[in-house]
Parts: sequence; structure tokens; C-alpha cells
Amino acid sequence: MPSRVEIFPLTGLPLINPGDDLAGMIVKQVRMKGLSIKNGDIIVIGQKVVSKSEGRVVDVSKVRASKRALDLARRVRRKAGFVELVLRDAKKVAKASKQVLIVTTKQGFTCLNGGVDKSNVEGERMYALLPVDPDMSARKIRARIQRLTNRQVGLLITDTHSRPFRLGQVEETIGLAGLDPMADYRGKHDLFGYQLRFKNVAVADELAAAAELVMGQGTEATPVAIIRGVGRVEFKERARSSELVVAVGQDLFKGTL
Amino acid sequence: MPSRVEIFPLTGLPLINPGDDLAGMIVKQVRMKGLSIKNGDIIVIGQKVVSKSEGRVVDVSKVRASKRALDLARRVRRKAGFVELVLRDAKKVAKASKQVLIVTTKQGFTCLNGGVDKSNVEGERMYALLPVDPDMSARKIRARIQRLTNRQVGLLITDTHSRPFRLGQVEETIGLAGLDPMADYRGKHDLFGYQLRFKNVAVADELAAAAELVMGQGTEATPVAIIRGVGRVEFKERARSSELVVAVGQDLFKGTL
Repeated sequence: MPSRVEIFPLTGLPLINPGDDLAGMIVKQVRMKGLSIKNGDIIVIGQKVVSKSEGRVVDVSKVRASKRALDLARRVRRKAGFVELVLRDAKKVAKASKQVLIVTTKQGFTCLNGGVDKSNVEGERMYALLPVDPDMSARKIRARIQRLTNRQVGLLITDTHSRPFRLGQVEETIGLAGLDPMADYRGKHDLFGYQLRFKNVAVADELAAAAELVMGQGTEATPVAIIRGVGRVEFKERARSSELVVAVGQDLFKGTL
Repeated sequence: MPSRVEIFPLTGLPLINPGDDLAGMIVKQVRMKGLSIKNGDIIVIGQKVVSKSEGRVVDVSKVRASKRALDLARRVRRKAGFVELVLRDAKKVAKASKQVLIVTTKQGFTCLNGGVDKSNVEGERMYALLPVDPDMSARKIRARIQRLTNRQVGLLITDTHSRPFRLGQVEETIGLAGLDPMADYRGKHDLFGYQLRFKNVAVADELAAAAELVMGQGTEATPVAIIRGVGRVEFKERARSSELVVAVGQDLFKGTL
């Protein structure tokens, strides 16, 4: 058999609550399902369960809105508590209209509602926020999985993002540990000796998208996937999801939207 | 074993020339490699080999540049023949600077250089253009693969795209046949009965990204991948890649860049 990439869904994980040992629950469920974690596996975790385990779930009716949030909420016709939550983790409001609220988060991700999201969170007024520091979350979960399994893995925390120019959402990486998010071809050569000047593949985002194929967004209850057999990934200890984000003022697409 | 997604790289395909029977060569190489094509497989093909087989490779030094191309080329300091090629397939120039040329193609894709690309094309002055109608290309290749194998498959033609806000490129779908590019959750419910209002996953782009994990951009010479076991995909005869593209004036991100 030629080499292949495999993506395993981790089904049957219990609902996650604040304080839960997510890494321990993943390792336990992997065993329950007859799966395994091997050296070089990449474990992909949807942001929502990480946020839940870290207690980043908030009752929007109990949020005290600032003057700024109240003003913005009135303008965009959203609930003030919700807007307050979005603003608290925002570095910059990119767009605020009745149709859409787009912010750049403190972590640097430009996304709808700053990642504040209602889906798959129990309770009518409960919203999940992004982890405070997704790379830190990824490092902690990875370290514990490695300790429990004695295996070396890469770890990604992902979120579902809308994109400019293209319809529909795709899964993208917002936190990572143990692997280089990029596969950099710049300076390397193609089949005919031509030197590649721009190719720098966001392999962490491709892994996130691949994992979503088995994860789903509705009632699938599969927030974790294991990806095996990816030869393109460079495993390394020092890695940051900020490498996936365009620096302020540096966007090639500036002025196109 | 629980269900899993598998991604097989099709290595060892010969270099593709104008007029080559790409579908036939893929089927032959699948057999040579001890792989197989099964019902429900999704075959992902990088745009470059499709363009080559369709003769969409041009010697930039022999291109007669229009006045418009000459003017633009002078302004952005690129070769006039190259700019002419980009403009010929462009519906709109989104950005033209010394740093970058971004256009919306006739097919509706907003990308650097309108997809006109040098990498992995033989000859110093030779550039590959996108297929004239990538959905038509996908339908033809799919039909021939199905005839040769007596199997029902989905087919994607993909290209490597830079993105706003995020660094690095990812593989995205520019042509398709036999499958719905979206997995639409709108109106469905989450784990707690909350009705999802926006979730509409661009599963064709996630498949493209997943395939790129085994394809590569340099000397890998693996322009084809077979994806097996994706339960999320709806196979259907009438499908268009234009569903992946935001209609003019409808972009949620308008004004953010």
C-alpha cells in the first residue's frame, strides 16, 4: 500500500463541562473506541470543547455592558450583552452593521462576532468565548496527552470561519502546539528547477479543514479528530498560531474589499 | 474500526502534455500503484495538470500585449505578456500594485495573477493558465473516469490560493462535478436543539485542503489524490463551483480590508 493520510473521528466523547480534564477524556475515549494515539499523530480539537473545559461559557443576560457596547448594540441591533462579550476580546472592530459584526480578536484572528458563538452550547442565553490564549491551551492539552500516552503528537485547536470572496465556512487553526503551521517552499525548486518565490502553504489550516470532514457542525458530537500519516508537517516545540495571521497593514488583499 | 477518511496520493503520474488523456492516465496509474477507485471516492486534481492536458500553457514572450496590458505592466513593473494573459481571463482587476496583481477571473475567483502561474511548467517563459471552464473540465474527466472504472465518483479541480487576513496559501476548489460543494446546516439543530442559522460549510474547499496534504507544491509530482470515506458529502449530478463564490456586492467582509 502506498502511504496515505488517515483521519479518525473521535465519536462518543461526553459533553464537556468547566474544569473537565479534556486531554484525559480524549485519551480515555480513544481507548474506548479501539483507536490509538501514535507518534506523529496530529490531534485536532474544535474550539468549543476547549472553551467549555476552560469555563469560557457566559450567560449573556448577566453580562454588564459598557457604554461602548450599548451604543454599538443599538446601532447594529444586537443584544448589548452579546456585543459586550465580542468587544471584550476584540483588538479592533473591522465592521459593524445590522448584517454583520466582524472584529479582529486579541489573538489576531479577524472573524464574525470575534468567535463568540451560541451553537452547541447548552442554555438559551449561554455563549462560548474563544480560549483566552489558544496556543497556551494547545500546549497544555498536548503536554498532558503526551504524558498519558508516552507519544509525541502535534495539536491544533480550530474554529469555523467565514471568509472573504468565498461562500461557506471552513475550519481554520486558532491555536497549536508541537508543529510548524507552515510548509514553506520559498527558495526551493519545482520539477523543472524553477525557484519558487511565494509558495508557503498554511498546512495547519489544511489540517483543520481536513479534520472538519469528520467533525461536523450540528448533532455529530465529534469535536476531536486524529490525523495520521502526514509527511508534510514539521514537528517542532516552538510554534505559534500567530504565524498564520497577516500583520497589521501587511495584507496583500488590502483595498480589494 | 470506526469510520475514517483516507487520502491516497497518486504518485508517479507521467508529465502531462497537451492533448493527453488525463482521465485515462489517472485510471492507469491507479492500477499501476495497486490503488483502486471505489464508489463514493472523491478524486482531487490540481489545476496545473488539467491546464496542461487542455493545452492551456503559453509562451509569455509570444503573447501580443494590448494597450491596456502595456499600460498596466508599466505601472506594476511586470512583463507585458504576463499581464496580458492575466487580463484576458479577468472579469475585474481588484488590485494592481508593484507588490501584487489581484483579479477576479471570469469564473468568479479572486486570486493573485488570476491563477496564471509559472511553477511546475516546463520552459523558462512558459506559463499555465486556468482551464477555460473548470466545471466543464471536471465533468469531462469525471465522466471518462466513471466510464473506464464503472464507479461513481466526485471530482474536484483545485488551485492554491492566498487569502485575506491569513498568511500562507491553501488549496481551494475551482471546478467540480458530481458533488455538492456545500454541507448546509442552516435550519438544522445543534446538540441542544438550537437552530443553526449561518452554518453552511464549504466542504469542497475542505476536501481540496485535505488533498493538498498529500499533493505538495514543489518536486512531489503528485497532482492527484483520492479521498475515501467522507460521509458529509452529498453526491449529485448538478453542481457548480460558482456556489463557492460570493456574488458581486454581497461580500460580508466588504469594507474590512
